[in-house]
Amino acid sequence: MRISIHKSAMTMGKNRLEAFSDGVIAIIITIMVLELKVPHGDEIAALLPLVPVLLSYVLSFVYLGIYWNNHHHMLHTSRTVTGSVLWANLHLLFWLSLIPFTTGWMGENHFAKLPAATYGFVLLMAAMAYWILQQRIIASQGEDSILKKAIGNDWKGKLSPVLYVSAVFLAFVSQWIAVTIYVLVAIMWIVPDKRIERVLISNEA
Amino acid sequence: MRISIHKSAMTMGKNRLEAFSDGVIAIIITIMVLELKVPHGDEIAALLPLVPVLLSYVLSFVYLGIYWNNHHHMLHTSRTVTGSVLWANLHLLFWLSLIPFTTGWMGENHFAKLPAATYGFVLLMAAMAYWILQQRIIASQGEDSILKKAIGNDWKGKLSPVLYVSAVFLAFVSQWIAVTIYVLVAIMWIVPDKRIERVLISNEA
Amino acid sequence: MRISIHKSAMTMGKNRLEAFSDGVIAIIITIMVLELKVPHGDEIAALLPLVPVLLSYVLSFVYLGIYWNNHHHMLHTSRTVTGSVLWANLHLLFWLSLIPFTTGWMGENHFAKLPAATYGFVLLMAAMAYWILQQRIIASQGEDSILKKAIGNDWKGKLSPVLYVSAVFLAFVSQWIAVTIYVLVAIMWIVPDKRIERVLISNEA
Amino acid sequence: MRISIHKSAMTMGKNRLEAFSDGVIAIIITIMVLELKVPHGDEIAALLPLVPVLLSYVLSFVYLGIYWNNHHHMLHTSRTVTGSVLWANLHLLFWLSLIPFTTGWMGENHFAKLPAATYGFVLLMAAMAYWILQQRIIASQGEDSILKKAIGNDWKGKLSPVLYVSAVFLAFVSQWIAVTIYVLVAIMWIVPDKRIERVLISNEA
Repeated sequence: MRISIHKSAMTMGKNRLEAFSDGVIAIIITIMVLELKVPHGDEIAALLPLVPVLLSYVLSFVYLGIYWNNHHHMLHTSRTVTGSVLWANLHLLFWLSLIPFTTGWMGENHFAKLPAATYGFVLLMAAMAYWILQQRIIASQGEDSILKKAIGNDWKGKLSPVLYVSAVFLAFVSQWIAVTIYVLVAIMWIVPDKRIERVLISNEA
Repeated sequence: MRISIHKSAMTMGKNRLEAFSDGVIAIIITIMVLELKVPHGDEIAALLPLVPVLLSYVLSFVYLGIYWNNHHHMLHTSRTVTGSVLWANLHLLFWLSLIPFTTGWMGENHFAKLPAATYGFVLLMAAMAYWILQQRIIASQGEDSILKKAIGNDWKGKLSPVLYVSAVFLAFVSQWIAVTIYVLVAIMWIVPDKRIERVLISNEA
Repeated sequence: MRISIHKSAMTMGKNRLEAFSDGVIAIIITIMVLELKVPHGDEIAALLPLVPVLLSYVLSFVYLGIYWNNHHHMLHTSRTVTGSVLWANLHLLFWLSLIPFTTGWMGENHFAKLPAATYGFVLLMAAMAYWILQQRIIASQGEDSILKKAIGNDWKGKLSPVLYVSAVFLAFVSQWIAVTIYVLVAIMWIVPDKRIERVLISNEA
Repeated sequence: MRISIHKSAMTMGKNRLEAFSDGVIAIIITIMVLELKVPHGDEIAALLPLVPVLLSYVLSFVYLGIYWNNHHHMLHTSRTVTGSVLWANLHLLFWLSLIPFTTGWMGENHFAKLPAATYGFVLLMAAMAYWILQQRIIASQGEDSILKKAIGNDWKGKLSPVLYVSAVFLAFVSQWIAVTIYVLVAIMWIVPDKRIERVLISNEA
């Protein structure tokens, strides 16, 4: 019983944490479009330089959609929010907030080598931040952590950082290898993650 | 009963999907105003070039208001959110997020031909994305889909893309034909859509 | 009973309308600060030109705070949201969304005559939009409208537009008269509006 | 009983106040990243000038995270929102909204003296606004204020303004002293504030 009181007091409002994270991600995903600067001319030639910016925007939009979706599933397993979960969450939002910058830089420089590597570096840091947040939530749930069961061997979570690191280095060989890796990782994640859903079902059953 | 458990686990929080969509639409509708760049002079001459930007802003504001309103009604019929509904929704938000760009481009170029056509193209893609989302929700509701009954023959939803396609091509004849079509489609939608409300009433009765 | 079904179906989610309006007002109040452009120098001389921009920002911040507060109280009296309330609300948000523009223009031009008049014009239109929304809500509440009782003779609501119109014209005599009027109207409203609260109390008693 | 009716009528929706504050803080924390202007070159030399901007962004991100967190805990103790709490809250949001400006100015000028002092001045005003809000909430809770018990002697709240004032003046000796103080105050606060949690536990027990 001491634990349950402790828990209820430690909870700092999962709903408010979710709402705040949703707000920040919604703003990040939307202000990215501000990098699509309105061109001055009105001919097709004025639009062409924007094509790489648009493509990098699409890629980042998908990534942020994936993060928003997985973030939701992860918090769904959780009832309480401890201080360390809160800061791990802010840490994740910090790296996500840099995505508009790296997206714009990569797009404006037509996927040049260094911007492409930097883009991967921020994805890598976001993936690490996500992993830390996951560990903090598992720790807060104690021994019978639903989330721990749900993620299983977490092969996607383990493979992604490895791929990002490779991409960061391979970008200096050819940026297109790096960009291809980013696209493949996105496709890998876009397939809805049934793991948590499955465990939730068997838990409710 | 198996289905009901399945459904409850599949639901990824309609409220959170609504809140996220509301957030993104609220941000889109508001950052559009940033295209109204503060002029440097303080005479009436400094304001005049902004008139077309303001007019295109009004048009897009109305369109986003319509989307927000209809989006609400559509989700109102739905209890559960599957993975495919989620991605169909993000797809819709993606096209809506391009509206500030096409609005600014059309406004700054005083409704020139190519920007006016591009504006219509994004409206067309948004309409298609809306239609896809509608189909995904109907599919998720199974045979007795309330939404399916509610939209009926969906003449507005079918007519709009045809009109947008016409406008995109007619913009190269005269941009004013295109703009007139955009205004007419907006008026057509602004009339509150009683269909879903009506079916909801008869369902509750 | 037919009415109650009708009402429940017509309601388009007051909570979602509130949340959307809150989101838009929160974004408006925050992006206004983007007009405070970061100066390039690092001496006091670099800051001085920003003083009028900051002052106009403070004034608009207070106005948006007042609108947010009163908007909340007004919707508090309402259970249902009809289509016309929805569009009247979007109409209000439209005029509020122009405040960052007029604020920036007035600030950057050190409260010049035309920008000061334009600022008042948008305040006037927002006040009219607020009044229209109020009428739509009263109409939707029927004969026993709580809101109607609550606003009483609504002297503030009637006086404000008169003062704004005066300010718009007097700005061409001296912008400082206009600005003084804007400040006085803000002070008049900042005094918390006890009317609705009072009626709510007597209604609950 | 008269009091309880009064209170319930005075409450202007704590949830809506929280949601609005969360929205504004989420927007502030996110638009700050817009100061990280996408550079035109694609070499490492293009990134270097951004390092101080990035560092000041990190510092402000942490500060806003702290404010968001403490703001939540503070409101957690409160049931009702009076008019003066509402305006004290808007006053706090006003000073927080200036942080992106001072952050950008300090970053772009590589932590020059005046920008570093200005940064501290806004932190000072935000701290004072927070203190005022705290006093207003305590006053609204009456004699048995939970918040009053929770903050105890409030040594952090009293020490911070003193440190900010010192930093503002010491910035003119060396900006690095000032920046060090800002970092130390942030670390002091980042340690989760157990006080309110503790009192909540003993109150529930």
